[in-house]
Amino acid sequence: MKNIQGIAASSGIAIAKAYHLAAPDLTFEKVAIDNPNTEIERLDKALEISKQELEKIKAHTKKELGDEHAEIFSAHLLVLSDPELINPIKDKISSDNVMAEEALQEVADMFIDMFKNMDNEYMRERAADIQDVTKRVMAHLLGVTFPNPALIDEEVIVLANDLTPSDTAQLNRQFVKGFATDIGGRTSHSAIMARSLEIPAIVGTKEITTSVSQDQIVIVDGNEGIILIDPSDEELTTYRGKQEEFAKQKEEWAKLKEEPTFSGDGEQVELAANIGTPEDVEGVLNNGGEGVGLYRTEFLYMGKNELPTEDEQYDAYKSVLEQMGDKPVVVRTLDIGGDKELDYLDLPKELNPFLGFRAIRFCLENEYVFRPQLRALLRASVHGNLKIMFPMIATLEEFRQAKAILLDEKEALKNEGVKVSDHIEVGIMVEIPSTAVIAKQFAKEVDFFSIGTNDLIQYTMAADRMNTQVSYLYQPYHPAILNLVNNVIEAAHSENKWAGMCGEMAGDPIAIPILLGLGLDEFSMSATSVLPARTQIRGLSKKNLAANKDKMLAMGTAEEVVEFVKELTE
Amino acid sequence: MKNIQGIAASSGIAIAKAYHLAAPDLTFEKVAIDNPNTEIERLDKALEISKQELEKIKAHTKKELGDEHAEIFSAHLLVLSDPELINPIKDKISSDNVMAEEALQEVADMFIDMFKNMDNEYMRERAADIQDVTKRVMAHLLGVTFPNPALIDEEVIVLANDLTPSDTAQLNRQFVKGFATDIGGRTSHSAIMARSLEIPAIVGTKEITTSVSQDQIVIVDGNEGIILIDPSDEELTTYRGKQEEFAKQKEEWAKLKEEPTFSGDGEQVELAANIGTPEDVEGVLNNGGEGVGLYRTEFLYMGKNELPTEDEQYDAYKSVLEQMGDKPVVVRTLDIGGDKELDYLDLPKELNPFLGFRAIRFCLENEYVFRPQLRALLRASVHGNLKIMFPMIATLEEFRQAKAILLDEKEALKNEGVKVSDHIEVGIMVEIPSTAVIAKQFAKEVDFFSIGTNDLIQYTMAADRMNTQVSYLYQPYHPAILNLVNNVIEAAHSENKWAGMCGEMAGDPIAIPILLGLGLDEFSMSATSVLPARTQIRGLSKKNLAANKDKMLAMGTAEEVVEFVKELTE
Repeated sequence: MKNIQGIAASSGIAIAKAYHLAAPDLTFEKVAIDNPNTEIERLDKALEISKQELEKIKAHTKKELGDEHAEIFSAHLLVLSDPELINPIKDKISSDNVMAEEALQEVADMFIDMFKNMDNEYMRERAADIQDVTKRVMAHLLGVTFPNPALIDEEVIVLANDLTPSDTAQLNRQFVKGFATDIGGRTSHSAIMARSLEIPAIVGTKEITTSVSQDQIVIVDGNEGIILIDPSDEELTTYRGKQEEFAKQKEEWAKLKEEPTFSGDGEQVELAANIGTPEDVEGVLNNGGEGVGLYRTEFLYMGKNELPTEDEQYDAYKSVLEQMGDKPVVVRTLDIGGDKELDYLDLPKELNPFLGFRAIRFCLENEYVFRPQLRALLRASVHGNLKIMFPMIATLEEFRQAKAILLDEKEALKNEGVKVSDHIEVGIMVEIPSTAVIAKQFAKEVDFFSIGTNDLIQYTMAADRMNTQVSYLYQPYHPAILNLVNNVIEAAHSENKWAGMCGEMAGDPIAIPILLGLGLDEFSMSATSVLPARTQIRGLSKKNLAANKDKMLAMGTAEEVVEFVKELTE
Repeated sequence: MKNIQGIAASSGIAIAKAYHLAAPDLTFEKVAIDNPNTEIERLDKALEISKQELEKIKAHTKKELGDEHAEIFSAHLLVLSDPELINPIKDKISSDNVMAEEALQEVADMFIDMFKNMDNEYMRERAADIQDVTKRVMAHLLGVTFPNPALIDEEVIVLANDLTPSDTAQLNRQFVKGFATDIGGRTSHSAIMARSLEIPAIVGTKEITTSVSQDQIVIVDGNEGIILIDPSDEELTTYRGKQEEFAKQKEEWAKLKEEPTFSGDGEQVELAANIGTPEDVEGVLNNGGEGVGLYRTEFLYMGKNELPTEDEQYDAYKSVLEQMGDKPVVVRTLDIGGDKELDYLDLPKELNPFLGFRAIRFCLENEYVFRPQLRALLRASVHGNLKIMFPMIATLEEFRQAKAILLDEKEALKNEGVKVSDHIEVGIMVEIPSTAVIAKQFAKEVDFFSIGTNDLIQYTMAADRMNTQVSYLYQPYHPAILNLVNNVIEAAHSENKWAGMCGEMAGDPIAIPILLGLGLDEFSMSATSVLPARTQIRGLSKKNLAANKDKMLAMGTAEEVVEFVKELTE
C-alpha cells in the first residue's frame, strides 16, 4: 500500500483504524408543509438535542482539558439560546409556510454572511460559531449523524481535512490514538494541541482524507511524518517494535526528570516550559521543566465580559509561583491586540493587526489595564521566584516607561504596607527586529532577554506566518534570524545578563544544536519537549558547535545552515 | 494672534487669505411631493450639472498634473452614469413617492454601507467614490455650493481637515499658494503631493479648520511648520522678507542644477530622483537630478482593466531612458499587493497585507506577469543606462530565481535577434530586515543595493506607518535603522558594489548628514529635494561625520541621535 508523507507535528507511533471526522451531508429537498406548528416543534426538538449534546461535550472538555478549552462550548450554547437568531427562524416558518430546514438555512446564512463580511476578527469568529451550531441543529432535523469527537468510544486514528480548536478540544486521549490532517503546519493550532495532549500527529498531508477509507487500519509515525495505510503483517511487526522502542525512549527520558541539563561536554543550560494557566504547572513538573520560561497571561483576560480583577490575577500568579517553588517563573504582561482580541476592550480595527496597536503599545496607553496586572504580580512576588517580562518592546523609551510604571506601583504597594520581593528581575521579549539589532544598548538596562521567535521571524522576513501564500518565508534557520539571535545572546553576555528563547524554535530538534552553539542560556518550550531536548543536549558538544558558529552565521540560505548542522551533529 | 504649530510638509512661505475646503451642509427637510416626474427631472438636471463639472475638473487635472491624476475623475464619471446606482433612485422616487433628495440619500447610503463593509480595499475605495459623487449631486439638488478646488480663481491658502487625492489633484498652483490640514504626517499623500507641486504646506495641525475663519489672512511657513493667523504689519514685513530670502535661496539652488554633488571636504555622492511616469523625467532634469534612483512601474498597471502589453511597457521604459541620456535609471519591477491592488489580477484578501503576497513574491509565482515586464526592460536597455531592481527580496533564493528568469528572457531575445545591452546592473531593494542583516551574503551576488526605508522602517519597528496609533514608532533615526543601513553600506563596499537609498529618508535634511557619514553612495528623493540636498551636502564634512559614526550607532534612542547630529553639524 502507498504511504503518505506529511509534517511530523507530534511524536510517537499509533496503530488503529481510521475514523473520518468529516462534515455530514446536510443537503435537503424542499417540500411543501401542512402545518407550520409541526415544523416549529421539529425545530424545538432539534435545538433541545443539540443543547444536551453541547452540554455533554462541554463537561467532557472541562474535565479533560480545563476551563479555557470548555469556553468554546459556552459560546456555542449561547448561540442556541439567542432569540435574535431563533425567533426569525420561527417567524419565517409561519409567515412563509416553509420547512424548518429551509427557514434555518436561510436565516443562518444571512447571519453568517453578515458577520463574515464584517471587518472584525471577533465578528468573523461569531460567524464560525453560528455555522458550527446551526450545522449541528440541521443534522438533527435531517436525522443524520453529526460527528462528535468527544463521543468516540473505541480506539481510532482521527482523519480530517483540518481540526478546529473545538474538534481538538474534544479528542479523548483514551480512544483517539493519533490524528492526521490534510492541511496545517508544525505551528498550527492542532499541532500545538497534539503535542500538549501527547497524541502522535501528522499535519499537512494534502490527501489523507481522500486516500483512506473509514475503518482501514493505519499507522501514524509522528516521529518521521509518515502514514502507512493497510500495513502488511511485516510492517505491523516493525512498527509495534518502534512503538515499544519509543515507549522505552520515553522511559529513558523520564529518568532525566529530576536531572539538570548538561551538554555532552559539561556545559549547563536551563530547560523551561511555556504555560497559559496555573493548571499547566503540573505538566511542567511532570516533564522535568526547570522553570516556566513564558507564562502567557492572556487566558486570564479571555472568555469573559470584563477585565479580570487584581485579586483574580493575584490568585493565579500566586498559584503558579507556589507550585514552582524556587524555580524561576517568567511572566509576560498582557499581549493583546494583533490576532488576539478582547471584546470588552474595544480595540481598533486595523489594516495590518500584526503591525498594530498591541501588547506593550496598548498597555502603555491604557494604564487602567496595565497597573492592576503589575500590582497583582508585585503582590504575588513574595510567593516564589518571579521574573517580569514586557512584550513587543521596540524602543528603549517603551521599556523605560513600562519599568517606571512598575516601580511606581511597587512604591505605592510598599506605602500601603504590602510586602513585595526585592529580587524581581525585569526583562523583555525580543520579538521585534529593532530590539534584536540594538540588543547591546538594551542589555545595559534590562535584567534578561527572552527571544520570541514566532514574531521575530515573521517581522524579520516580512511574512505573516498564518498566510499560506508566504508561509514559505517563515524560516527559523534563515541566517538573518540566526545572526539576530546571536546578536542578542552576545549583547546579554557582554553585560552579564542571561538570554532565553520562548518561541516554537526553542524546542525544535534542528534548532537546538544551533542555539546551543550560539550560547543560549535558557530554552523554553512545550512541557512535553523538555525531556527529549534534555536527552538531545546530553549528546551534543557545545564547544564544537560554538567553534563552528561564525561559519554558520556567514551562510547564505536556511538550506545551507540545516545541511551544515546535520553534518556537524552526525 | 495665536500661531499654530504643525508638521512642515512642503517648504516655502505663503501669504494669502484663508479658503475653507469644507463639506457643505447637505441636510434637508423631507416634504411631500406632488409629482414624481418633477423629482426625476430635478435629479436628471443635478446629474447633468455634476457631469459637466467633473468633465471640467478632469480636463483641468489632466492638463496640470497628467493622465494618472485625471483617472480619479474618470472613475467618478463612471459612477454618475452607472444604471445600477441611478435606476434604483428613480424607482424609489416613483414607487415611494418621495423627494429626489431622499431617494438619492437612501440608495447611496445603502451602496456606501455595502461597499464599506466589504473586506476589500478596492471596494472601500468605491464606497469613497460613490460618497464623493453623490455629495456633489446632492449639493446641486439643494442648490448649495459644492467646493471645487479646481475652480478657485483668486490667491488663497486652502484649509481642510484632510485633503483627499482628488482634492489635491485639483489644486491650481496659480491660485492656491499653500495649504494646511488638521491631520496627516510628512509621508501622507497630501504632503508628498505638496512637495511635488512645490506648494508650501503644513499638515497635522489638529486645529487649523476650527481656529481660522474664511478670508482671514494667514501666513504658512512650510520651512518651520508654523501658521500665523491675522499677522501684524510687522509680521507681514518679516515674512515677506523671508519669502524673498527663500526665493533667493531657490535661485542659489538653481545655480547648482548642472553641478555634480560634492561634500565640503570633496567627497562625491550621487543625487537621483524618484519617478512614477515618463512625464516625471522633465522635473528630474529641471531640478538637477543626476539620475533616476527609483522608477516605480506600478502606474503602468493601474487605472486600466488589463495588464499593460509588453510594447506599452517598452515605450514607457524607452522614453525614460532616452530622456535621461547616459544618466543612470534604476527601474523597480512590479511592486503590487500590500496596500496596492489591481482589480484585474484578483489578488488574495489578506489579514496583514503588508506582510503578505506582494511584489517579487507575486511575480515569481506569476511569470505571465513578470516575464513581459522583463522583456520590455531588456528591449529598452539599448536606449540608455538601465539598471534593474527587484523589490521585497527576503532570501537569496528569491534573488537567484528572479535573476535566472531575467537571464532566460535575455537569452530568448538574443535568439530572436533582438539587441539587448550587456551592461545592465541587476540589484535589489533592501526593505526587509532579513536582507539588511545578511547584506554581506547578498553583496557577493547583486550589483547594487537600494535601501527602501519606508518599508524597512515599518518592518524593523513592527509598526504600520499608516496606523496612527503606532505611527510614533515610525522612527527613521532609530539606532536599529541606522545600524541596518550601515550594515548594508559596509557590505556593498566590501564587494566594491554601490549602495543607494530611495525612501523618503534620503531627502530628509536631518537624515542626510547621517547617511553621508555612513558612506551612502546614492540618494534618491523627490525631484524638488535634489537642489536643497546638494546645497546642504556642500556644507558638510563627510570625514568628520564618518569619524563620529560608531558613536552614533551605539546610541540608545532616536532622540539622542538627532541631538548628536545637530551638534555635529552646527
